[in-house]
Amino acid sequence: MEWQARLKAYADRFDQHLESRLPLVQGRAEPLVAAMRYSVLAPGKRLRPVLCMAGADAVGGDAEGVLDAACALELVHAFSLIHDDLPAIDNDELRRGRPTCHVQFGEATAILAGDALFALAFELVAGMHVPAERVVRAVQILARASGADGLVAGEIVDVLTEGKPYDAATLEYIHSRKTGALIAASCEMGALLGGGNPSQVEALEAYGRHLGLAFQIADDILNETGTSDELGKAAGSDRSRGKATYPHLHGLDGAREAAAAAAQRAIDALPKSLNQREFLIGLAEFTVQRKT
Amino acid sequence: MEWQARLKAYADRFDQHLESRLPLVQGRAEPLVAAMRYSVLAPGKRLRPVLCMAGADAVGGDAEGVLDAACALELVHAFSLIHDDLPAIDNDELRRGRPTCHVQFGEATAILAGDALFALAFELVAGMHVPAERVVRAVQILARASGADGLVAGEIVDVLTEGKPYDAATLEYIHSRKTGALIAASCEMGALLGGGNPSQVEALEAYGRHLGLAFQIADDILNETGTSDELGKAAGSDRSRGKATYPHLHGLDGAREAAAAAAQRAIDALPKSLNQREFLIGLAEFTVQRKT
Repeated sequence: MEWQARLKAYADRFDQHLESRLPLVQGRAEPLVAAMRYSVLAPGKRLRPVLCMAGADAVGGDAEGVLDAACALELVHAFSLIHDDLPAIDNDELRRGRPTCHVQFGEATAILAGDALFALAFELVAGMHVPAERVVRAVQILARASGADGLVAGEIVDVLTEGKPYDAATLEYIHSRKTGALIAASCEMGALLGGGNPSQVEALEAYGRHLGLAFQIADDILNETGTSDELGKAAGSDRSRGKATYPHLHGLDGAREAAAAAAQRAIDALPKSLNQREFLIGLAEFTVQRKT
Repeated sequence: MEWQARLKAYADRFDQHLESRLPLVQGRAEPLVAAMRYSVLAPGKRLRPVLCMAGADAVGGDAEGVLDAACALELVHAFSLIHDDLPAIDNDELRRGRPTCHVQFGEATAILAGDALFALAFELVAGMHVPAERVVRAVQILARASGADGLVAGEIVDVLTEGKPYDAATLEYIHSRKTGALIAASCEMGALLGGGNPSQVEALEAYGRHLGLAFQIADDILNETGTSDELGKAAGSDRSRGKATYPHLHGLDGAREAAAAAAQRAIDALPKSLNQREFLIGLAEFTVQRKT
């Protein structure tokens, strides 16, 4: 299978499963569930779930067996986007081509829907049918990647740095946590839950870490060069807000070089013996060439 | 030991441990960590941690061995208070006698500090040194108690019901989830992680569920009858906001009866064979008699 066809196959299988894992819009907490579903079921790249599934396949495991972990990763991603878009943080009104959660459902519901998605992520991982030791380790990886030295740390430093001078180390801190941590966790959790040995899990984690950085630099570039229509969110918003970005600090060409270098490091991290190597390489190359 | 002395011993031991489990205020995400510590280390009743520790002791386990779970429960509680106090939700400016997190640190930091505490809670449970099967089950209990059919569901229905007519079933839905779910989870997790058998775990869960309701009804009553000084938060706020409460729906006497009945159901749920029975009974009785 060509890597693009495999990407579509993973994403389609994932979307099917995701729907089955979300609560139904019924009962007294209806608006909460509606907001959760609205945010999660919006069309997305499903990069994190795909990486989790591919990570399991890569170590000779079974992508079907890690679908709940893949869901958990997408839920954490959706939760972080909802909170990120809030008026007190990035104040974004457009996401995935639709009004952001708080615009659609109000701020209180959006905050709480994010919280509920985060909780559901851990519930799904804890309910997986794999050996308990692996589940515990997966919970640990997911929690660390999301928390005060992961995603949330990236967010806060991103917010605090807005409109202020910053250096390359701060920029890397933000990107590696805001985006890199969860993408690395996706690969790592897939490999771990798929039964990979420690060196395979480590290699996939490294692949994900570099891929995550490449992905976020590419995002920075697209925010500069793309249109809002293409992106499904406000183009040029980073510059107008004074966000710390690679194009801002290193110029567009410098940013493109950094993205390509990170993608290459991701590829170099893959041992020759892994399954799905072609797919993982194709994805890394695409990450820095994509237009949306 | 008298039950009051035991309560103090549990709470003191817990406070000591809690401090050691929080990140230090250093590094780039400093304001985030400062906000996390500010909210968690504010003086509190530590009801949930105490119940978790007592739950372990009650089944012949070891309170020391469940301290990380006790921390996790307090972190989830603190996270829910931070988000609850936000302008978009309850818009509270006073909590535990001090400015609320968003008043002190700004809204963006408060939202993210809540998120980081929630993540840390799961990280702590996943790092516990007890058999992995128990850890997995504890993660599941904590996630369910916090999420879209637990704490967050109680919050959203509480918000949606404000200023509107409501019935007794809605009121019970709110209270059993907003407060009851995490208190029940505290007892259940303590018993489970302490090595209790299924019927012991179930009994402690039932005790916690009834105690949680009694506790919240008592809170409703104190909000009507206490002073802001005594409570460390705004007295009379429920009435002025049109919140669904037991005194509002059933009158003060009706609310007192309902609280006493729930406390009695909690006591009745305790098998004669449990350790720490005197303590758990004393705590249930105190819950409905307390003045703060």
